[in-house]
Amino acid sequence: MLKRYLLAPGPTPVPPEVLLRMAMPAIHHRAPDFIPIFESAKNRLKWLCQTGNDVLILTASGTGAMTACVNNFLSPGDRVLVVNGGKFGERWTKICGAYAVSVEEVKVPWGRAVKPEDVARALERDPEIKAVFMQAVETSTGVYHDVEAVGGVIKGKKALFAVDAISALAVHDLKTDAWGVDLMVGGSQKGLMLPPGLAFLSVSEKAWEMAKGSKSPRFYFNLKKEREALKKNQTNFTPAVTLIAGLDAALEMIEREGLREVFARHARLAGAMRRAVGAMGLEIFPAESPSNSLTAIKAPEGTDGQEIYKRLREIYGVTAAGGQDQLRGKVFRVAHMGYAGVFDVITAVSAIEMTLKGLGHPLRPGSGVGAAEEAFLEQTAS
Amino acid sequence: MLKRYLLAPGPTPVPPEVLLRMAMPAIHHRAPDFIPIFESAKNRLKWLCQTGNDVLILTASGTGAMTACVNNFLSPGDRVLVVNGGKFGERWTKICGAYAVSVEEVKVPWGRAVKPEDVARALERDPEIKAVFMQAVETSTGVYHDVEAVGGVIKGKKALFAVDAISALAVHDLKTDAWGVDLMVGGSQKGLMLPPGLAFLSVSEKAWEMAKGSKSPRFYFNLKKEREALKKNQTNFTPAVTLIAGLDAALEMIEREGLREVFARHARLAGAMRRAVGAMGLEIFPAESPSNSLTAIKAPEGTDGQEIYKRLREIYGVTAAGGQDQLRGKVFRVAHMGYAGVFDVITAVSAIEMTLKGLGHPLRPGSGVGAAEEAFLEQTAS
Repeated sequence: MLKRYLLAPGPTPVPPEVLLRMAMPAIHHRAPDFIPIFESAKNRLKWLCQTGNDVLILTASGTGAMTACVNNFLSPGDRVLVVNGGKFGERWTKICGAYAVSVEEVKVPWGRAVKPEDVARALERDPEIKAVFMQAVETSTGVYHDVEAVGGVIKGKKALFAVDAISALAVHDLKTDAWGVDLMVGGSQKGLMLPPGLAFLSVSEKAWEMAKGSKSPRFYFNLKKEREALKKNQTNFTPAVTLIAGLDAALEMIEREGLREVFARHARLAGAMRRAVGAMGLEIFPAESPSNSLTAIKAPEGTDGQEIYKRLREIYGVTAAGGQDQLRGKVFRVAHMGYAGVFDVITAVSAIEMTLKGLGHPLRPGSGVGAAEEAFLEQTAS
Repeated sequence: MLKRYLLAPGPTPVPPEVLLRMAMPAIHHRAPDFIPIFESAKNRLKWLCQTGNDVLILTASGTGAMTACVNNFLSPGDRVLVVNGGKFGERWTKICGAYAVSVEEVKVPWGRAVKPEDVARALERDPEIKAVFMQAVETSTGVYHDVEAVGGVIKGKKALFAVDAISALAVHDLKTDAWGVDLMVGGSQKGLMLPPGLAFLSVSEKAWEMAKGSKSPRFYFNLKKEREALKKNQTNFTPAVTLIAGLDAALEMIEREGLREVFARHARLAGAMRRAVGAMGLEIFPAESPSNSLTAIKAPEGTDGQEIYKRLREIYGVTAAGGQDQLRGKVFRVAHMGYAGVFDVITAVSAIEMTLKGLGHPLRPGSGVGAAEEAFLEQTAS
């Protein structure tokens, strides 16, 4: 038996409480017993997103909600900005391209965070920009973009601010309303501790106004209809009822822990992971603003990141992630997001130590784990 | 405690074997341990759909796959036929409208099945028709449209044949390839005995050819990319992994029972239900070709179908369905689809008897149940 540990940046482990809630007998989505479950999940989701706006629940992957952001609010020919600092920034550009929305990219070198002034400058150059798309956490590089600061330069402008927070929700403090985020996208399989299959989307009044002029075709992702249904604690089409029941269970756990404490826990875990990386003589990939969701680690000189990923899995049962596109072979990524605690970080670090040692890389076993322990001890002492 | 029975035309009950399979710990969708699960489900799905074509697995409700049928194969201005004999026929028309596809409807009175010659005549009048859309089972009326016969009149024509089999798959014998069905749409929460959240779509070579010319915008539902991913036992975006694991478990159950036996069981259940309806002095709504998935029953003179639906639920714990749109108040609908056996029909009939008796309708308690029992006894004797 090789005991398995899921430490990938999504899907993430699902707590037994949530697995069992989802194993309940089927409920009819239009029947009265589903209404309180849906209503509870809906209200808790608003709390999690720190918004007074509606948070729509879609039966789809996160990319479904990203698609809905483009084809419900924009029209062919509209001009938008995309902050592109990795694989998922690219995705915004591709979605816009699919709907003939004209994109100007604010290119950010992989591993860097966007400079808010670059967004401000681009908006000044073209006041007709209808939306700014970016990630909160760019999963391919492990960078956190400063949502608050970028929100600050968009405020008062015509443009909508759309944030892919799929890898950030329930990890980083994201003040949707206070920071002027018009469209906040979430997914079930990350900080929310659920299996994949649900996407979330908070929509501001400003965005609903802009939706009136949108001329892109849509049917399954028709957000106006979802909004009407949501008022009745329903969805427009048959939703993934078991996942929604699981969502309510997961949000109940988050509520019990407390939002501040959830963010603080992720900050502690990420901080300890980064200390361990340094103590192992390794480097994190982000040159600035590393996320608290996952840590992208450079494969040391003379090793192959894909080989590290493979050995972590096959020898130690630890499912992490390799690098994508230009980072393939150059980095590997370990998540500490959602249902994650101290010993998930310890397990990851220990597995990395043994893997690198096994590959002949010079490294003192226990050096990384020791540093992570010291970080945890300091955190609990303070 | 009011013990609950889910006898609605979707979602349907989920067997404990499937619920437990879905409660397994999270698996990473790109990791090797997911591949055999996905591959097994994929191959069993082809077997279930009686097709050599790819059957794509989408994380969405059935309507997501219906939307994908319109925006992956057609372009604005294309002309299509829609067989519209109820609420879900209407849905095809609405989806086409959303993508500026021009619809000619073959109108079928609610409760009637389409006449294949009407489809043939419409195709002769306009040889440029690019696709024919219809339902196998029209869930709003409980009618089965003759897929084989309609397929026969389309064969050799330019048009694609797209069938919404969401309420028919794993209930009615649907020979996708032999009957010339180019696009067969399924959903998880009906005959497949799963919670909602997955949609299925088999695509013929003729349809892939037509897809090359399609100019509708798409991103989340990009079937060409799904096809490429499917070859590698993957999906284009993060799929609902727990539902796919459940899918494999459900298909394993169907495989063990045998396809012919599954269809025969549904025919027996539906036959017994219809006998019981007659014995209670009631009438089924379909004037012809009633489906084996569900039975739509006319609310007897002087009663309200919605009241019957409500009492079934509140007094007897039986979740059936009311009527939709023009049938609201006039019918109620009971399913015998998926994880259903003899005593689900007996339960439904008994609950209907008590409900109608409670509403003052003249009816001898046990008359319907007795007739159903006789039907079952004859079936097992023969």
